[in-house]
Amino acid sequence: MTDTRITHWINGSALPGGSRSQPVYNPATGQAVAEVALADTATVQTAISAAQAAFPAWRNTPPLKRARVMSQLKVLLEQHSDEICTLITREHGKVLADAAGELQRGIENVEYASYVPELLKGEHSRNVGPGIDSWSEMQPLGVAAGITPFNFPAMVPLWMWPMAVACGNTFVLKPSERDPSSALRIAQLAEEAGLPPGVLNVVQGDREAVDALLTDPRVKAVSFVGSTPIAEYIYAQGCKNGQRVQALGGAKNHAVVMPDADIANAVSALMGAAYGSCGERCMAIPLIVAVGDQTADRVIAGLKEQIAAMKVGPGTQAACDMGPLVTQAHRDKVRAYVDQGVAEGADLIVDGRGLVVPGHEQGYFLGPCLFDRVKPGMVIYREEIFGPVLGVVRVASLQEAMALIDAHEYGNGTCIFTRDGEAARYFTDHIQIGMVGVNVPLPVPVAYHSFGGWKRSLFGDLHAYGPDAVRFYTKRKTITQRWPSAGVREGAVFSFPSSR
Amino acid sequence: MTDTRITHWINGSALPGGSRSQPVYNPATGQAVAEVALADTATVQTAISAAQAAFPAWRNTPPLKRARVMSQLKVLLEQHSDEICTLITREHGKVLADAAGELQRGIENVEYASYVPELLKGEHSRNVGPGIDSWSEMQPLGVAAGITPFNFPAMVPLWMWPMAVACGNTFVLKPSERDPSSALRIAQLAEEAGLPPGVLNVVQGDREAVDALLTDPRVKAVSFVGSTPIAEYIYAQGCKNGQRVQALGGAKNHAVVMPDADIANAVSALMGAAYGSCGERCMAIPLIVAVGDQTADRVIAGLKEQIAAMKVGPGTQAACDMGPLVTQAHRDKVRAYVDQGVAEGADLIVDGRGLVVPGHEQGYFLGPCLFDRVKPGMVIYREEIFGPVLGVVRVASLQEAMALIDAHEYGNGTCIFTRDGEAARYFTDHIQIGMVGVNVPLPVPVAYHSFGGWKRSLFGDLHAYGPDAVRFYTKRKTITQRWPSAGVREGAVFSFPSSR
Amino acid sequence: MTDTRITHWINGSALPGGSRSQPVYNPATGQAVAEVALADTATVQTAISAAQAAFPAWRNTPPLKRARVMSQLKVLLEQHSDEICTLITREHGKVLADAAGELQRGIENVEYASYVPELLKGEHSRNVGPGIDSWSEMQPLGVAAGITPFNFPAMVPLWMWPMAVACGNTFVLKPSERDPSSALRIAQLAEEAGLPPGVLNVVQGDREAVDALLTDPRVKAVSFVGSTPIAEYIYAQGCKNGQRVQALGGAKNHAVVMPDADIANAVSALMGAAYGSCGERCMAIPLIVAVGDQTADRVIAGLKEQIAAMKVGPGTQAACDMGPLVTQAHRDKVRAYVDQGVAEGADLIVDGRGLVVPGHEQGYFLGPCLFDRVKPGMVIYREEIFGPVLGVVRVASLQEAMALIDAHEYGNGTCIFTRDGEAARYFTDHIQIGMVGVNVPLPVPVAYHSFGGWKRSLFGDLHAYGPDAVRFYTKRKTITQRWPSAGVREGAVFSFPSSR
Amino acid sequence: MTDTRITHWINGSALPGGSRSQPVYNPATGQAVAEVALADTATVQTAISAAQAAFPAWRNTPPLKRARVMSQLKVLLEQHSDEICTLITREHGKVLADAAGELQRGIENVEYASYVPELLKGEHSRNVGPGIDSWSEMQPLGVAAGITPFNFPAMVPLWMWPMAVACGNTFVLKPSERDPSSALRIAQLAEEAGLPPGVLNVVQGDREAVDALLTDPRVKAVSFVGSTPIAEYIYAQGCKNGQRVQALGGAKNHAVVMPDADIANAVSALMGAAYGSCGERCMAIPLIVAVGDQTADRVIAGLKEQIAAMKVGPGTQAACDMGPLVTQAHRDKVRAYVDQGVAEGADLIVDGRGLVVPGHEQGYFLGPCLFDRVKPGMVIYREEIFGPVLGVVRVASLQEAMALIDAHEYGNGTCIFTRDGEAARYFTDHIQIGMVGVNVPLPVPVAYHSFGGWKRSLFGDLHAYGPDAVRFYTKRKTITQRWPSAGVREGAVFSFPSSR
Repeated sequence: MTDTRITHWINGSALPGGSRSQPVYNPATGQAVAEVALADTATVQTAISAAQAAFPAWRNTPPLKRARVMSQLKVLLEQHSDEICTLITREHGKVLADAAGELQRGIENVEYASYVPELLKGEHSRNVGPGIDSWSEMQPLGVAAGITPFNFPAMVPLWMWPMAVACGNTFVLKPSERDPSSALRIAQLAEEAGLPPGVLNVVQGDREAVDALLTDPRVKAVSFVGSTPIAEYIYAQGCKNGQRVQALGGAKNHAVVMPDADIANAVSALMGAAYGSCGERCMAIPLIVAVGDQTADRVIAGLKEQIAAMKVGPGTQAACDMGPLVTQAHRDKVRAYVDQGVAEGADLIVDGRGLVVPGHEQGYFLGPCLFDRVKPGMVIYREEIFGPVLGVVRVASLQEAMALIDAHEYGNGTCIFTRDGEAARYFTDHIQIGMVGVNVPLPVPVAYHSFGGWKRSLFGDLHAYGPDAVRFYTKRKTITQRWPSAGVREGAVFSFPSSR
Repeated sequence: MTDTRITHWINGSALPGGSRSQPVYNPATGQAVAEVALADTATVQTAISAAQAAFPAWRNTPPLKRARVMSQLKVLLEQHSDEICTLITREHGKVLADAAGELQRGIENVEYASYVPELLKGEHSRNVGPGIDSWSEMQPLGVAAGITPFNFPAMVPLWMWPMAVACGNTFVLKPSERDPSSALRIAQLAEEAGLPPGVLNVVQGDREAVDALLTDPRVKAVSFVGSTPIAEYIYAQGCKNGQRVQALGGAKNHAVVMPDADIANAVSALMGAAYGSCGERCMAIPLIVAVGDQTADRVIAGLKEQIAAMKVGPGTQAACDMGPLVTQAHRDKVRAYVDQGVAEGADLIVDGRGLVVPGHEQGYFLGPCLFDRVKPGMVIYREEIFGPVLGVVRVASLQEAMALIDAHEYGNGTCIFTRDGEAARYFTDHIQIGMVGVNVPLPVPVAYHSFGGWKRSLFGDLHAYGPDAVRFYTKRKTITQRWPSAGVREGAVFSFPSSR
Repeated sequence: MTDTRITHWINGSALPGGSRSQPVYNPATGQAVAEVALADTATVQTAISAAQAAFPAWRNTPPLKRARVMSQLKVLLEQHSDEICTLITREHGKVLADAAGELQRGIENVEYASYVPELLKGEHSRNVGPGIDSWSEMQPLGVAAGITPFNFPAMVPLWMWPMAVACGNTFVLKPSERDPSSALRIAQLAEEAGLPPGVLNVVQGDREAVDALLTDPRVKAVSFVGSTPIAEYIYAQGCKNGQRVQALGGAKNHAVVMPDADIANAVSALMGAAYGSCGERCMAIPLIVAVGDQTADRVIAGLKEQIAAMKVGPGTQAACDMGPLVTQAHRDKVRAYVDQGVAEGADLIVDGRGLVVPGHEQGYFLGPCLFDRVKPGMVIYREEIFGPVLGVVRVASLQEAMALIDAHEYGNGTCIFTRDGEAARYFTDHIQIGMVGVNVPLPVPVAYHSFGGWKRSLFGDLHAYGPDAVRFYTKRKTITQRWPSAGVREGAVFSFPSSR
Repeated sequence: MTDTRITHWINGSALPGGSRSQPVYNPATGQAVAEVALADTATVQTAISAAQAAFPAWRNTPPLKRARVMSQLKVLLEQHSDEICTLITREHGKVLADAAGELQRGIENVEYASYVPELLKGEHSRNVGPGIDSWSEMQPLGVAAGITPFNFPAMVPLWMWPMAVACGNTFVLKPSERDPSSALRIAQLAEEAGLPPGVLNVVQGDREAVDALLTDPRVKAVSFVGSTPIAEYIYAQGCKNGQRVQALGGAKNHAVVMPDADIANAVSALMGAAYGSCGERCMAIPLIVAVGDQTADRVIAGLKEQIAAMKVGPGTQAACDMGPLVTQAHRDKVRAYVDQGVAEGADLIVDGRGLVVPGHEQGYFLGPCLFDRVKPGMVIYREEIFGPVLGVVRVASLQEAMALIDAHEYGNGTCIFTRDGEAARYFTDHIQIGMVGVNVPLPVPVAYHSFGGWKRSLFGDLHAYGPDAVRFYTKRKTITQRWPSAGVREGAVFSFPSSR
């Protein structure tokens, strides 16, 4: 047990919250490092009220001023980078370098939010009819909410609220209760950067908090990132209550390796994509689709060699490539998937199940695992494992690879390794996936493009961050204006002031 | 009973459809003029299958070719204008000039859909990282569906499917079963214009057809226009099934008249806005908010005079300003609202309840009604009447007028009549309404802007037609591309075959 | 001599023009087919005056109405296609299929101009400061002028004036005096389509007309396409007189063929790019840069075979691939280049100098010529020949090919034939050329992108047609608006008349 | 004489420059405070060479990294604000608060340049033809140059080079030789912020330096702000040498005051617009056009009262509203204009010619002057005085006011004071002026819009800063790409590598 209590942040103050709470663990040690409050409905409503109250003044603040808070936040995040990364690693487990990468991506979203005077420009048309003008304004919605997952505790919140508030909204964020500290700290820095109290509120919590957000009529928009079943629930519930919702779910991203690819380069790229952050990323690559047996053999040989050199241990050790999984339960679940893959008949080439990290025996570690001859029917092919388990599927042609990808229920990311322009073009054009890489294993769009999957990886129509986020966090107002003539131009009204 | 059977249009052929059907009436005579098939689930699924089958080829057709079908359709619609307007008036009742206005607005949406090569442009970024490029493509969704209301039987379908198919989707349209003929005829013209069979399908039907569209996983997007309760149902059901949905509902649009307005001009403008098409428009003005009693008195005096000069009769008579309501049941419902207004204590200044149109005694006519001293608590203030009933509310200030508007559940359109720049700016900035007119009574955005209300007038995030429709009918694909160096540039790889 | 007199078209009427004139020849026969008037300064000024007079009303015509004239012109151009192509072939010489291709490209520019309501949208910003709004409007300039070359007598004028007039300008066009009839006919069709008289005026003429356009202060913008020396003159003179000018000049486009290219495909593509329209295109490919001797040998073998199958003759004969050159003088000049190439030491693999077309001995024909081993120092490498003369340069690497291209004074177009993604990306990123093809020999941008070269191929900053043309033919007006408070919102000013 | 020598800044180092130099004066004291080097042609060429050498690496630096240098520069400018403002006031004379305002506007341009990843996005079109894609890239030009005026020594350079370098260009800046220190200091801060040496170079100089920039073929673009005769010269010379040029010249901005305006508010606004920075601003208001004599009388009464309260003295004194003019020669020239206005018959209501600032008798001071009954024929009406001299013109109607404005040779800015929406709309639509204010006296566009006048106030087509600057500092490259099929998709090539 620990003395540290992770609170809510409402209207510019830390609030201890209701009676319920639960421990937050350091996955590298298995020890509880803090106790996080779990908001009851009333606490969430308090946060929403604070956001609602802060809205009118913030909405009327010129976009340029709102943008400058984002610029200043960027400076503060860079200054507090080490502190935030330490929080991420302590609660999530990922290695510090990876935490720094996550934070950097998050900062880029803050940076993009600082462009908001440009991004909010509406369209103006003179003379839509004789003497009639029309233009659009992208006005803020009011209170928006974000519900974010454990795997990117700093970055995913930064996908959401900076653009939401830059657009003039106020916000209630519910970060993951597994690793809530970095998002909370960033919220405090945002106020230091100039965000008025109440504009951004953080509630710690679980399903009760989520439901309170989904049912409150003052919450106009909900952004969610998590697993597909929850995403579907959020989308259905929020929409039923009249909210606009974007709900990002799970993934099972396939990397196609063509025979003409630079195999050494592809293998290096795929190592990080498969095992980085223990595979706990919705853009991770858990499946390689090798076109041709020779390709498969070469890829596997390369992977084996590189896996052998990997170092697994606590995220705070600079030399480590991979840390622990997020919780004991999750580690056990991933290990069970590996057991099942073996049972289903896949070839377990590298078995990480026996890994023990000396001095961290209670940590939630699992070594990297590699399967060959994974088949589409297997559970380890179909389901999102979210662990350091990479499978190779062997196919005979690009068409066969693409048919597999398109048949899968998820549609988040994919990539192809090739030198061939035609293969790349055909793949990027036709594949039914939202984010596509060509020789790029993790095609996460940069902050000035938008992030989103297809099929059951995203519910809604607008993607996360980038240009789509501007549209999601605003409502269009279209104005049509005509000034009837009263003789102003002829001066009849005005021309004899002396006798008026 | 009639011999004319209004069929489905699936895969380029008229299909008689299932066993159920119902009559379509001419509201000016009260006579059935046709029998419309009502699709069962299987028929809807056949239409979806046709659309699904037509998708791959249509999706691969270059946007410019798709655009040209729209250009050609525009030409055909202009050529067949009289025929289509006759169908509208026969089944809906509106006067022919109004039908022509409706069709013209619809044509403008076809025109905008013909700009699609420009509208589909994605964003390209060279060097998002060293040697890495990223760009977005707006790809079609697959099968989209539209469910449209009786009040604009030609226009509202043209808000939807032209842009949907121009973007590369295929479509299933379910028009209103009260006046389905014009949409059907236009679908046939679209094929004459070059649309391949199966790209646009029309199913006639009622709730069974709607539910079949909402539950079919092949339908990726649903656009709806109708009443708010149905819009909510559509939004909740479609989203529950993972579809993207835009659902436009009811309205109660207020027109504010300021003391400095050009009253004569305002009155003329409001006459058409209140009584045009019997008030059966979601952008109609059923409420005038007069600022100051003197303003109210002048407005009412002007309205009385102009109402006295109105001519009500069958829509086919050129001299008529207003035709019948759409059905007997609706006429009776509107009449009951007038009764209720009187009972609630509003002043019925002009009473149209007794109107008889000679020679059309069975027609669903109701004369124009005008209430003064309507109060916010009254049912006739709160509910959408969708009939020729105009009410005047008296307030003391612009702030009071705006408070009323913002407190109403609907947020479709509103307008202000004034000469004052400050009043116009304050109103347009702050009012919680999606479409705002300044001295424009019906601020329906032109086709190259987008249409949509706020609050309970629209569920979803993207508005109808215009730029938002392009986003609604496409899904974003973001591609990130890198070509690893293999020494190409030095030519080492390639130059060896010769001995230079 | 001929009876046909080609006139000016000013203010909606054919004007015979001044005292000077010159014959127009049919290059296939060497016979004069018409006499074209040559405008004196006064005639040009009359045209400018007509344009100036037509400007105010046209500028105030809503963009949508202007756009519809373009839509209607498109319909008329398709209907009169055969007639226009006949005029092109008769005066220019190109084969009819090529004339049809030219006209089609021109029509696409008319089509793009019809999108102008979308393209003219300005940018609107609410709250650039507290209570202050700002927006931009792209307003027309007034009178614009176009000076166009002989080689695309229909298309290049359509690059210019449709967008100029769609943006609200009026226009004076001076087509080439060698083949002026198609542009004149199209101007007449434009008025049939609804363009008011004076909005588009055509003056036939030579340098006197050009100078009259460049020195008249009422002409605000000049678009020119022609040779580089004249482009420089136009740019210097127009700018000296305060006009905005875009002046497109000459080209010497290189096609790089990589060893991994599909050679058969490349050869077929390059045949048309080199010899189509006798090479009289600023996007023609007169130079192939083969990487590796083996590549060169294979390309040359393929070209020889296909050249042997080419048919040269009058453009009106359907079987012909290539017609005559435009004038006798130009044919002689091109032939002299071939002589010089031989003298300089290039290998003349195919010699077209001796070609005689039976029955058309007076036509300005020259057979296709092919040089191997062209070197950068040679005149036939450096200068734009504008004839059916193709040269092959042999290099050892892509880097060497690119160094050649970048060292050349022209920068219009180039292309690379390869299958390799890296080669394509490196080439497109770094090459100092405005229009770049990857496996596309003539990378002429489609009408919804813009056309323009770099280096000495274009003077000015905005390219021709597409989005850049909208900017070129408009001037930006930025409006900043604030309404000081006079208590309107409280209603104090307005409510007093009544005693409520 | 002074010991301080103001040097060039080339390739990251201060260079003393050639043999020529001249003093820089403090206008408040009339004392020389520094000696500025005047570059000879060789020095300018050295700077261009440095810029040329820095270009390839800078061009290949990802836009996001270039943007971050701008973000960092913004931070440094804010930190060094006092230092820079002191330099401005010492050499230019304006009061410190005004210098701070200038710098703030300049910083906003740096801020906008930091959005460049968004601003550089090109347009991407999939399937411009079957299997053919096309996209545009906005690539940098190479070396660009800026020549800037004395009146905004910090801001106008910041209009230019930050966007130029953010777009990937390198730059040579020649600030005004009268007050060169602030621009030089900012250049040094830019390198501190991360700009590599050679990317931004500053040459001090006069006409020799200007001519060296205009004639060097390595300089691709020239931006100029100054007087109209010089702007014309720059435009003609640069264009003659094939450069792209935007040259902003003089102004004579009229403010229209309508009878319904809030006169007190208008007078306060106009005081600053007329006398701020001694009227040495191209957006200053030297002319008020009062509609109606009563309006004129009220405006003049208000102005007289406020002028009487003005305090003129050294810019370093916090209480001062207005400092000295920039040079003795300029002060004398302005004074001569006042003499001439009296001679021409205008009513000199307030005469500032006799002003003596105690303790600063050698300073270049002139008190505020106010003329009534200025007429269009007078020299003080026609010419840009660039001093604290305000004239009132009396007219009878808005039409008359607009006719005056449109007849004037300059077209930079204008404004109207009114409450009437129709007057504002008619004025903003029709007036032939590039920047228009409604109740805003100095309608300088914010940094995310663009700055530019019409008529003889700007030569070129693209305006300064904002979106237009992105287009000006880039050249469009359009790529058209097709990958011919080699059976990749069928897998024939790749699918059986083992047996190949």
